[in-house]
Amino acid sequence: MHSILIRNNVKILGQGSQVILFAHGFGCAQSSWKYITDAFLADYRVILFDYVGSGQSDRNQYDYHKYSTLEGYACDVIDIIETLGLKDIIFVGHSVSSMIGMIAALQIPKSFKKLIFIGPSPKYLNDRDYIGGFEASDIESIFNQIAEDYVGWTKTISPAVIDKAEKPELSDFLQECFEETEPSIALAFAMATFKADYRDQLKNLEVPSLTLQSSKDIMAPQSAGDYIHQNTRENFLVVMKATGHYPHISEPEETIREIKEFIEDRKVDDRSMDLTLNNSYNF
Amino acid sequence: MHSILIRNNVKILGQGSQVILFAHGFGCAQSSWKYITDAFLADYRVILFDYVGSGQSDRNQYDYHKYSTLEGYACDVIDIIETLGLKDIIFVGHSVSSMIGMIAALQIPKSFKKLIFIGPSPKYLNDRDYIGGFEASDIESIFNQIAEDYVGWTKTISPAVIDKAEKPELSDFLQECFEETEPSIALAFAMATFKADYRDQLKNLEVPSLTLQSSKDIMAPQSAGDYIHQNTRENFLVVMKATGHYPHISEPEETIREIKEFIEDRKVDDRSMDLTLNNSYNF
Repeated sequence: MHSILIRNNVKILGQGSQVILFAHGFGCAQSSWKYITDAFLADYRVILFDYVGSGQSDRNQYDYHKYSTLEGYACDVIDIIETLGLKDIIFVGHSVSSMIGMIAALQIPKSFKKLIFIGPSPKYLNDRDYIGGFEASDIESIFNQIAEDYVGWTKTISPAVIDKAEKPELSDFLQECFEETEPSIALAFAMATFKADYRDQLKNLEVPSLTLQSSKDIMAPQSAGDYIHQNTRENFLVVMKATGHYPHISEPEETIREIKEFIEDRKVDDRSMDLTLNNSYNF
Repeated sequence: MHSILIRNNVKILGQGSQVILFAHGFGCAQSSWKYITDAFLADYRVILFDYVGSGQSDRNQYDYHKYSTLEGYACDVIDIIETLGLKDIIFVGHSVSSMIGMIAALQIPKSFKKLIFIGPSPKYLNDRDYIGGFEASDIESIFNQIAEDYVGWTKTISPAVIDKAEKPELSDFLQECFEETEPSIALAFAMATFKADYRDQLKNLEVPSLTLQSSKDIMAPQSAGDYIHQNTRENFLVVMKATGHYPHISEPEETIREIKEFIEDRKVDDRSMDLTLNNSYNF
């Protein structure tokens, strides 16, 4: 089998010619999409993968230098697209994978039809007027906690980032996802994530995109979603009812509905309607 | 997405670097493997597909001339292998797909590690000393029944070829598989199947193979399995406890066990043991 397909543990599921490529976020793997992918199998070709170093990818191909930047991760996305000959895909990226998808779409725009960002942030660090949500000292503290006791840290943050106290099994699920990643790779991925600043590149994105902004997210605050929306040419912003950083785990139905509205070109109507009715869309 | 992957509705499932490609038989589709594939997902990369004209393949690519011979179907197998860069695969073919796999393995032997034939036949028509199980008049009658009332015919034959009266849901399942195929394509596939004679080519096969022979099969009698075994260089023959032409549907556990024994290189030991104990293996 083509080495890329093994390396990134690529799966192909579902029916139809329109491909949706789901790209997981930090510390997770393709398993993190399990609550929403079934809803797309009847009408879309669903492609799942694990970034090198994550999930069931080939650990031997991990390279600390290559994956010290999001560009390294974007290479994985591009390799998969080229290996499978994908064109005009829908890319769904969670968290840091939103910017990874953007990087890939800047390099090979014709391969992308639409991008969907779930809980994106162009920069996690606060920077003068820009509110990313984290001070340098916060991030340093996170790095230290990951370095000292990664599993302990994941147990602390999982309930907070899922933000669904009535369903503790969901934060357990997330925590199990996190545990699949080696601590040293998780640390390197966290460093690549938190040092990223892609604000200047948003204006170059030509592929239409959707930002799914959780209404309360300690990893990617509304200000980060707003920044992407305001600085990207054709970006729809939806503030979800869902709270937490993992709406595809905590509120799968709402997440599925919003993704489908966007990829089935029903967002334009929503926009005018919502501006009138309840302003829940911000354009 | 690469057109071959769409055309043949290719799915990639499971873990690991060893690929198993499952090739369905006449009138069916990849769905016919559903009772056994789960058992391979933990340790093998499972690839499923539908031949053009079957299941959810791209009907528009069907060509009556191309698919009038098993060589046309073998092109589908080769296209998938080449598109995905597969090497050293395990090929599991049911019924007519056994010979389709052999044709592909004669063309690109290095892509194949092992072939597994479930209910194979090198020739369905009786021919002097050779007992394929069908007279010309039988086959003509089958063609007429398919042409006149394909669905009616599938309702008649499904219970007989499944041969598992205590589980009528299994013949219902098979019949639903059959119904997915257009009658005109089913007729053309039946004609390609029943006119085939690959007896002379068996000696050229270099890839080790396993014949899983049902102990009672109205489509592929023991004489057909014996012929393959006796005329193929490195072929193991297992006469299963299962009856019927679809042991992967009627007796999935036995089928899984036999496939695993062969692909995990445990058949040699079985051979000597079984020769001593109960002679259920015929070498």
